[in-house]
Amino acid sequence: VKALTFHDSLKVVDDAPSPQRDGEALVRVICAGICNTDLEIARGYAGFKGVLGHEFVGRVVEALDSNLVGRRVVGEINAGCGSCDLCAKGDPRHCKKRTVLGIKGRSGAFAEFLSLPVCNLIEVPDSVSDEAAVFAEPLAAALGILEQVQISPKESVVLIGDGKLALLVVLALAQAGENLTVIGKHESKLDLARRFGARKTIDARAQQADLEPADVVIEASGSPSGLETALRIVKPGGTVVLKSTHHEPTTVDLSTVVVNELKIIGSRCGRMKPAIEMLKSDRVDPTVLISNRFELAEGVRAFAQASMPEAMKVILQIS
Amino acid sequence: VKALTFHDSLKVVDDAPSPQRDGEALVRVICAGICNTDLEIARGYAGFKGVLGHEFVGRVVEALDSNLVGRRVVGEINAGCGSCDLCAKGDPRHCKKRTVLGIKGRSGAFAEFLSLPVCNLIEVPDSVSDEAAVFAEPLAAALGILEQVQISPKESVVLIGDGKLALLVVLALAQAGENLTVIGKHESKLDLARRFGARKTIDARAQQADLEPADVVIEASGSPSGLETALRIVKPGGTVVLKSTHHEPTTVDLSTVVVNELKIIGSRCGRMKPAIEMLKSDRVDPTVLISNRFELAEGVRAFAQASMPEAMKVILQIS
Repeated sequence: VKALTFHDSLKVVDDAPSPQRDGEALVRVICAGICNTDLEIARGYAGFKGVLGHEFVGRVVEALDSNLVGRRVVGEINAGCGSCDLCAKGDPRHCKKRTVLGIKGRSGAFAEFLSLPVCNLIEVPDSVSDEAAVFAEPLAAALGILEQVQISPKESVVLIGDGKLALLVVLALAQAGENLTVIGKHESKLDLARRFGARKTIDARAQQADLEPADVVIEASGSPSGLETALRIVKPGGTVVLKSTHHEPTTVDLSTVVVNELKIIGSRCGRMKPAIEMLKSDRVDPTVLISNRFELAEGVRAFAQASMPEAMKVILQIS
Repeated sequence: VKALTFHDSLKVVDDAPSPQRDGEALVRVICAGICNTDLEIARGYAGFKGVLGHEFVGRVVEALDSNLVGRRVVGEINAGCGSCDLCAKGDPRHCKKRTVLGIKGRSGAFAEFLSLPVCNLIEVPDSVSDEAAVFAEPLAAALGILEQVQISPKESVVLIGDGKLALLVVLALAQAGENLTVIGKHESKLDLARRFGARKTIDARAQQADLEPADVVIEASGSPSGLETALRIVKPGGTVVLKSTHHEPTTVDLSTVVVNELKIIGSRCGRMKPAIEMLKSDRVDPTVLISNRFELAEGVRAFAQASMPEAMKVILQIS
């Protein structure tokens, strides 16, 4: 199987082992997206070795239920043990024994084929294009914020960051009607934020004197200074959502958290179905975030491109 | 006015300025308790200079409403501006212009007299002794956790710390019926935790192999390693409550917070009325936490005693 693998370095190989697992569906990957988590794994973070990738759309080629064969699908990336309390409740996202597609114990989506439990697959409606469907996973992650934090219409939300995940957060929250201000460092990305429904954007390089304290601050910049900024601009009693995976220990002024009685909420994955519904609604077109497309054979170059500051979503076209 | 003041050092003086403020009630302090925040201020933390102390019971000696004179009272320590949105909603705890008794912009309770707005005073029922009433403020802070976090009866709670504030948290949570495990380092304090209703106690110096991951972990040890421990033992999706003021920046592994989708909640002050109700209920006797009593004139020695590891609540008897 042709695949983009990471061991000591990133490499495209033609002979990766078949990902097929007993009882699961085998999916031929159509295209896949590169996420910052992939870039961090490729820098050695998290200790994952193997085929990378977890944002994908594909077509089922083998499954016990033959009705599934030929369906176009996206997939929940967490595969639970199936028997613990969390899995029994239908939410394997925190199952202790879970594997995670291209992240933990499970071969990923930057390959001709991937394997996932049938219950992880969600069919993609015909009206959603392949390239839009690739955004289902990160859009679900963005929507996950609304699962975790109740934001009332009167409350103000500030988003720190203007990268690809941050902009999906803009889409998700603007659709939910939130009063959103985005702080970023790239004019063109802040333009997109406004197109996606941000009421206001602020260039982080300029003075921030006019920034009102916010009820909710979402840190999605991935930068160590993001949390510091968030703690400075959130109202007492307010909420800071951490949406980026920081892979290094960060120094935090916890006395601010206590004295101002702040809430800090870590947010990782969301549900795929609401994301697919949103993509179907036609009010949302995340494909404008695509900055580059590469063939799988050019995967190493694709990663280099995805690491550039001006890059947005880089897509691998696989079959 | 005789008072225990902190400027460059801690000192008992006989000629502190009268604390009286226009329109406020003047209260003769009966007795007052030393809190860790006082110890930290006396080490130079928070920059407060003046008369320390915020845990007290006293008797009103002057007030515009003569009905108040002679009443025995405790007081909410945050005095708001009275005109901002928060104050208008009756909760000055986060008013930006607030003063805080013995902590910020307002002379404190380690003095013969203090001044507070009438709306901050809560009358103490006759059945509650002076020394029990002194615990109203820290008990309110302990009860504040239940204002901020919904804990269902099925959920498990681990409390890190066995100091005086931690043990009041035990009282507050055990009364609320919580399933509470306490981790501490002092056998006698852990004994008290069990008397106060903890279902289980664990000596932190022993192996912790048998500790089940908890739904809610409350860090009340005041030690920098407390949060680290909390993040290690909390369930994915669980809540960590920060109940101690850490006065130094702390290094936190934020990727654990994101990947496990944890909530970290800072908790400082609570409401006095529920605390007074609890003290009145007679099921609760916090005065067993008193380890030492001193006259105001011996205030400096009292602080030295309160800083000892084995000390619990140190009381200043003032009038």
